[in-house]
Amino acid sequence: MTLQPGERIDQLYAQNVQIIQSPEVFSFSLDAVLLANFPRIPKRGKIVDLCAGNGAVGLFIAGKTQGAIEMIELQERLADMAQRSVALNHLEDQITVHQLNLKDSLQVIPSDSVDLLLCNPPYFKDLPTNSKNPNPHLAIARHEIHASLEDVVKVSSQLLKMNGRFAMVHRPERFLEILQVMQDYRIAPKRAQFVYPKAGKDANILLIEGIKDGKTDGFKVAPPLITYGSDGTYTPAIKELLYGRQ
Amino acid sequence: MTLQPGERIDQLYAQNVQIIQSPEVFSFSLDAVLLANFPRIPKRGKIVDLCAGNGAVGLFIAGKTQGAIEMIELQERLADMAQRSVALNHLEDQITVHQLNLKDSLQVIPSDSVDLLLCNPPYFKDLPTNSKNPNPHLAIARHEIHASLEDVVKVSSQLLKMNGRFAMVHRPERFLEILQVMQDYRIAPKRAQFVYPKAGKDANILLIEGIKDGKTDGFKVAPPLITYGSDGTYTPAIKELLYGRQ
Repeated sequence: MTLQPGERIDQLYAQNVQIIQSPEVFSFSLDAVLLANFPRIPKRGKIVDLCAGNGAVGLFIAGKTQGAIEMIELQERLADMAQRSVALNHLEDQITVHQLNLKDSLQVIPSDSVDLLLCNPPYFKDLPTNSKNPNPHLAIARHEIHASLEDVVKVSSQLLKMNGRFAMVHRPERFLEILQVMQDYRIAPKRAQFVYPKAGKDANILLIEGIKDGKTDGFKVAPPLITYGSDGTYTPAIKELLYGRQ
Repeated sequence: MTLQPGERIDQLYAQNVQIIQSPEVFSFSLDAVLLANFPRIPKRGKIVDLCAGNGAVGLFIAGKTQGAIEMIELQERLADMAQRSVALNHLEDQITVHQLNLKDSLQVIPSDSVDLLLCNPPYFKDLPTNSKNPNPHLAIARHEIHASLEDVVKVSSQLLKMNGRFAMVHRPERFLEILQVMQDYRIAPKRAQFVYPKAGKDANILLIEGIKDGKTDGFKVAPPLITYGSDGTYTPAIKELLYGRQ
């Protein structure tokens, strides 16, 4: 296993997975851990990790399924990190990394074939007024420079089977737009979970799940998650996601 | 002050308000207390309490504003209870009770005149398959027999000034429909708060606030409220709403 300059190997203890990280290029965040733990993971079938970055979400769920996992990542450098992490964990038979723009996903994955699609997309619009990270790797991961929310949801809907499930982590500020775009592309929003940085603070992370061609009634809001306790350390619920049940 | 058979006078300690209740006809619930505490109450101007029931929401906020409060309640028996509670608290100069179907609100309140509209409407659709309470007072309060969600939001929008605020308590199951209907009638959803019966349970109460002709960006999700602790008693946050800061 060759590490590039600046790279290191981190461990996600809760899943016993090792992952190649680089603060200069991309490191997975709590958001990826939350997303990987949000939907029920099907035991078999096809799972897609869209906007895969260094592959964190797909790697975190690999132990919970015998299904095939397809990662889609635009950035060559990140797709290469993901590929090497797959090898590091001996998951080459289960996980395939595709380096391409998610808008071209149908070139490598058939339409209407996916059971579960997970996505941790860029959160911020690509507006001229938005200040962006001067590091292009980080700017692309955070801003909708190469794919918009609508692109993400559109291609997700194309890839998903009827009754296939879509799960995304995003920001509550964009909740209304997310619900609208999902419904525009035949993904019925079914369940949300809000994550709050501390007790008494507004939510800063949104988890949303939908079903392709599902019914829009019976929306559920899952129990709240709070990231930090009053002492500034992770709450027990978050520690369990990161380090497993102690 | 004459009480009808079965009526009693309850106190909301947090607001030092007395309210005439009757379990056979209508008693205010935690939902009314939550709604009364959800939006910022303007110091002056016109406030409407739609689907007022026995007047709980309007009575709870009266001490926080010098504005005029107009209650709209369809059921004669409930409107009469509300009127007597207004007298009991010596609030006749501030609160007016109108007994009529909310769809006729414009007969008594001018359009585009309201600064804040609060509503605790019936939560359940009037479907032939829905079992309803055989007590017609309770059935009308709980099911959309005389006014639908769309009726509520439509008349709210007509009554509100531009930039007037709409605040409603409802069920999370109907969240998508609520957001859609609000936007259909020019009320931009701006803020939600979810209430969970216990830690680890899905939300069972939704509080939603919107602004007439507002922008739909920047949606906020306020801190979670949990009703009961693990010992089955109200949590400190709920006790404070009910009994005041101890």
